[in-house]
Amino acid sequence: MKKQLKSKDILFPVPAALVVCGNEKKYNILTIGWIGMVSSTPPSLVISIQKNRYSLELIRETKEFTVNIPSSEQYLETDYCGVASGRDTDKFADTGFTQLKSLKIKTPIIKECPFNLECKLTQEIPLGEHIMLLAEAVEAHIDEDKMDPENRVNIDIGKVNPLVYCATVREYWTIGKKLGKSFESYKKFVPKKAK
Amino acid sequence: MKKQLKSKDILFPVPAALVVCGNEKKYNILTIGWIGMVSSTPPSLVISIQKNRYSLELIRETKEFTVNIPSSEQYLETDYCGVASGRDTDKFADTGFTQLKSLKIKTPIIKECPFNLECKLTQEIPLGEHIMLLAEAVEAHIDEDKMDPENRVNIDIGKVNPLVYCATVREYWTIGKKLGKSFESYKKFVPKKAK
Repeated sequence: MKKQLKSKDILFPVPAALVVCGNEKKYNILTIGWIGMVSSTPPSLVISIQKNRYSLELIRETKEFTVNIPSSEQYLETDYCGVASGRDTDKFADTGFTQLKSLKIKTPIIKECPFNLECKLTQEIPLGEHIMLLAEAVEAHIDEDKMDPENRVNIDIGKVNPLVYCATVREYWTIGKKLGKSFESYKKFVPKKAK
Repeated sequence: MKKQLKSKDILFPVPAALVVCGNEKKYNILTIGWIGMVSSTPPSLVISIQKNRYSLELIRETKEFTVNIPSSEQYLETDYCGVASGRDTDKFADTGFTQLKSLKIKTPIIKECPFNLECKLTQEIPLGEHIMLLAEAVEAHIDEDKMDPENRVNIDIGKVNPLVYCATVREYWTIGKKLGKSFESYKKFVPKKAK
């Protein structure tokens, strides 16, 4: 039996991505649950930010930002960067996160976050009270001690232990156990009714 | 110490969303890891589909689709809907998933998936080999036995037990334990360096 929900802007599980933006004078951190990879040619993602957010001004100024995926251990730091405003405080100082130089852009990545993307803004699409920012991912980083030579892209998800966010539900979770890899389903299912 | 990765179209954790599209003659199911909520005014999301996918033709025809979030138990069904093509088979028949009538659109939701969104296509944005589809979420459903009156949007994530996908890494995971709710971080961090 299905029930209908009042809110319709609900999606889970999503990353609680830490977006760094700004300039040499001050870098800010914003937590974003509204993010999605959208192309591989070139690698492109979208993030959505409320129109009145301080970080939007910063990204418009430099046309770049970094996306940093926190581990479960960093969930309070991640939540804090989503509720405090960079207009009023320095979130690097408050949380103890460290800036690490990027390779392809000026905006730093967060050293303590296990996975990081350097992004260049390519397009802005206004959507009501939000602005959807389309960006190209120009570099990807992983902590050396969280690599897995057996995985196709060299990431050991268990060691990364990424924080899981349930948007609008507003809950933080850990990942649990690994179920399997893509393309294993043909063991169980076969196309039987071709049309 | 950071290492750089060859692939840059990596994002995790993401939903492994089952997208239903088509018409009365045949409904298809497509698995999408490239999805993101992007506005709440109105509730809007994007999904990205490769240009040559069968489902893209179907969505263009009806201008609607449903997004169905599977539970961890449905990971093999979910994987199968991502690797088999609806051009060659009937994935509802193959997996045993059941069509349930939607309330605001004609395209059905998947009964067995605990959370479902009905979506109307509003815009197409070509991005290389992918097409990003922007859609409005016009209805949201939850299984009655997975509701939680204590949560702000009435969803018990533990009971939903959503499947977690790590895109490009290509691994399926379960969720683990609940860490906490948003806005709890002020217990630990306080803005100390106002600027």
